[in-house]
Amino acid sequence: MEFDKFFSAAGSRLKSSKIRELMKLAGDPEIISMGGGLPDAEHFPFEEIRKIIDSWDGVKRTAALQYGATGGYGPLVEQIAEYVSASGVQTHGQAILPTTGAQQAIQLLTRVFCDPGDTVLVELPTFIGAVAVFIGYGADPVGLLMDDQGLVPGELEEKITGLREQNRSPKFLYTNPTFQNPTGITMSQSRRDEIYSLCSRYDVPIIEDDPYYELYFEGGPEDYRSLKARDKDDRVIRIGTFSKILSPGLRLGWILGPPDVVSRCELAKQSEDACSSSFSQVVAADYLAAGYVNQYTAKMRPIYSSKCRLMLDCLQKEMPEGVSWSHPAGGFFTWLTLPGHMDSEKLLLESIKHKVAFVTGSPFHVDGGGRNKLRLAFSNSSLEQIEEGVKRLAGAVRSML
Amino acid sequence: MEFDKFFSAAGSRLKSSKIRELMKLAGDPEIISMGGGLPDAEHFPFEEIRKIIDSWDGVKRTAALQYGATGGYGPLVEQIAEYVSASGVQTHGQAILPTTGAQQAIQLLTRVFCDPGDTVLVELPTFIGAVAVFIGYGADPVGLLMDDQGLVPGELEEKITGLREQNRSPKFLYTNPTFQNPTGITMSQSRRDEIYSLCSRYDVPIIEDDPYYELYFEGGPEDYRSLKARDKDDRVIRIGTFSKILSPGLRLGWILGPPDVVSRCELAKQSEDACSSSFSQVVAADYLAAGYVNQYTAKMRPIYSSKCRLMLDCLQKEMPEGVSWSHPAGGFFTWLTLPGHMDSEKLLLESIKHKVAFVTGSPFHVDGGGRNKLRLAFSNSSLEQIEEGVKRLAGAVRSML
Repeated sequence: MEFDKFFSAAGSRLKSSKIRELMKLAGDPEIISMGGGLPDAEHFPFEEIRKIIDSWDGVKRTAALQYGATGGYGPLVEQIAEYVSASGVQTHGQAILPTTGAQQAIQLLTRVFCDPGDTVLVELPTFIGAVAVFIGYGADPVGLLMDDQGLVPGELEEKITGLREQNRSPKFLYTNPTFQNPTGITMSQSRRDEIYSLCSRYDVPIIEDDPYYELYFEGGPEDYRSLKARDKDDRVIRIGTFSKILSPGLRLGWILGPPDVVSRCELAKQSEDACSSSFSQVVAADYLAAGYVNQYTAKMRPIYSSKCRLMLDCLQKEMPEGVSWSHPAGGFFTWLTLPGHMDSEKLLLESIKHKVAFVTGSPFHVDGGGRNKLRLAFSNSSLEQIEEGVKRLAGAVRSML
Repeated sequence: MEFDKFFSAAGSRLKSSKIRELMKLAGDPEIISMGGGLPDAEHFPFEEIRKIIDSWDGVKRTAALQYGATGGYGPLVEQIAEYVSASGVQTHGQAILPTTGAQQAIQLLTRVFCDPGDTVLVELPTFIGAVAVFIGYGADPVGLLMDDQGLVPGELEEKITGLREQNRSPKFLYTNPTFQNPTGITMSQSRRDEIYSLCSRYDVPIIEDDPYYELYFEGGPEDYRSLKARDKDDRVIRIGTFSKILSPGLRLGWILGPPDVVSRCELAKQSEDACSSSFSQVVAADYLAAGYVNQYTAKMRPIYSSKCRLMLDCLQKEMPEGVSWSHPAGGFFTWLTLPGHMDSEKLLLESIKHKVAFVTGSPFHVDGGGRNKLRLAFSNSSLEQIEEGVKRLAGAVRSML
C-alpha cells in the first residue's frame, strides 16, 4: 500500500540530513574518519563493568532486569546527586531525572518548553543534535556569536532586546559551555557570571549541556565551574551524561533542575520509553559508588590531551597558509576555518578521495553560515591515524587551492 | 524563577495520571500488588546474560560500549529477522528498527502518522501506554468493541464507514491481538483474516503490537499467527519486544514494517535518543543467536500457566456472585467485571485497606467506560501471593456489596 497520504506533517518533513548522506560516503574502511564525536574505544572501562555485574546480588539482578520507575533507579539518582555536588553544583531543592542519553534530555526539555514558532537562543555554531530537536518541534533557533571566551554578553543582550521589540521572548538559552561541540571553545568563568546575570535580568531560562567538563587538558575543575553552580534563582537546567565518563553505549544521561521542570520531563518520558535501561542504570549507580569515574577520567585526560596536542602540531606542520583552528583546553574537537572562498562540503568530497573524513561546518550553524568551517574529532583516532589523517586532509585542502 | 509562562502547550498539559497517583497508594510493602504488567522476576535469564557478556571479544565489547547507528546493531537486526521469520512472518522486503522498548515503537509510529485531531482506531479496552501516546500527540482514539474472539468485524466496518461520513479517515488501527493487555482476550485466527480483509478493503494501516504471543498456555504457534503473516499488501506494521522473552530492563523492542514507514521512524528516533542501548542490543543479538529465547519461553509457559490457573481457581472459589472474569489462553492478565453499580476506583481504595492492589478499568477505555472493570496481573506474583491476594480482593468486594 501507499503510505504517503497517511503521514503526519512532522512525519512528512522527516528527511535524511545532508550530513548523514555525506557521512555514508565515508563508510570505506580505508578512510580515516575524524567525523563522529566518539569517545576513545580502546579504553572503555569494560573490566570495571564486568566486575560490577559479577558482584550483583538477587536484588540488584532483579533491579537490572525488571521494569523500573520512569523517575529512575533510586540509588542512581542519589549517586548522581553526590557526583554533581562534588563539582560545586548545589543539588538541594533540585530534581534529577535519568534519561536515555543526553539526547533524550534535550528532546524532553524541548517538548516541555517549545511550541511551533517559539524562539530559542543557541550558540553559533552549536551541537547538531540539539538543532535537530529544536527544528523537529518547529522552534526557531536564533544564533549568538562567540569569541574565544565563548558567548559574547553584548551580543546576548542585543539579541534579547531585539527579539523583545518583535514581541518574542526566548524560551531558553541552550549552551554547551565547556570544550564546546563543535568548536572546542570554553566559556570563561567571568563570562559565565555575565551570561548568568543577563539571563537573570531578562528572565531567560538556561539549559546548560555540559558533557566534556571533566576531560580538561589544562587548569582544574575551578576553571570549568558550571553555570548551575551560580544559580541563585533556579534558572539553570543542567544536562549531564555518562557517555564521556563511562560509555555512550549504555545510553544514560540526566536532567538536573527545578522540580517543576523535571517532573514534566518525567511525565513526557513516561510515554516515550517508560524508563531508561534498568541494566545501564544499575551499572552506572555502582560505577559511581565504587569511585571508578575518577579513575577513568584521570586516565583519559592525558590520553585525550596527547591526541589533541598531536593533532594541533600536525595541523601546524601540514596545513597551508590561510587555514586556522581552535586550541581546545579539553574535550574531543578542534574547529577549522578554511580560506573564505573554500566550501567544506566540496572539501569533504575531495577528502574522501584522499581517504579522510570530517564533519562540515554548515549543519552546526542555524543562520546558514559556516560554509568554510569544519569539525575534526581527535578523540577516537589513534596517534598514527591522527598524523596520517591530518596529512591527507592537508593534501585535500591543497588540491582545492 | 517561575516557569509556568515558559511551558509549551504540550508541557502545560502534562499531568500525573489518576492511575499513577492511585498506584502510589500501593507503595506499602505489605500490599500484594497485582497491578503492574511485570514479567516474573524470579526467572530472568541472568546467568545466560552473564555468560554472553563473558564471551565478548574486543569487537563486541566495543560495539556494546560505543555509540551505535540509529538503525540498530547489524547482527541484532539480522537475528530479529530470523526470529520473526520462524513465526511465519514474511520479512523479505520489510525493514526492522530496534527501539527503546515497544513503548518507543508506539511513540515513533504515532509521531510519524498523527497530527492533532487525527483519528486512530483502538480496542475497547486497550493498552494504557498506547492511549497516553495517542493523546499526547493530540490524536483522537476511537474505540471498537470486542467479544471473546477479539475485535468484532461488523463493528470495525460500521465505525470506519461512520467516520467516513464525517470525512474522517483513521490513520491506523492499533491492536494487541494475542492475550490482550488488559483483557487477556485473543483475536481468533478467522477474525484476524476478517479484520485484515476489512482494513485492506477500506485502506487502513494496521499497527499490530504483539508482546505476549510466545507465552501461550493452550494450543500452539499456529493459533496465534500474526496479522503480519497475512500481509499481502504491506499494510501491517508489527511491534515486537524483548521485555517478555528476555528482560524489560534492557529496554529493547522493534518495529517491523514497510521500509518507507520504518525509515521515517528511524529519522525521528535520531533526535530522540540517537540509538537504543548498544549494550542491550549486543546482549539481545547473542541471546537470539544462542537459541536462549526458546529455552526461556519453554520454561516460562508452564510457570505463567500455573499462576493463571491458580488465579482463576481462586477467583472461582472466593468471588461473590455477580463478578466475572476472562479466561486467557496466555499472557499476564485476567480482566474482571464487577457488578454494574460497583466502581473499581472506589474498590481500589477499599482494597488498599485490605492490602491488595490492581489497576482500575477506566484508563484502558477511550470512551469513558470501564468503571466496573479491573485488571489483575498474575505474572509477577508468587502462588502464595495469588492465593492470598485474591482472597483479600474478594473480601474488599464483599465489603462493597
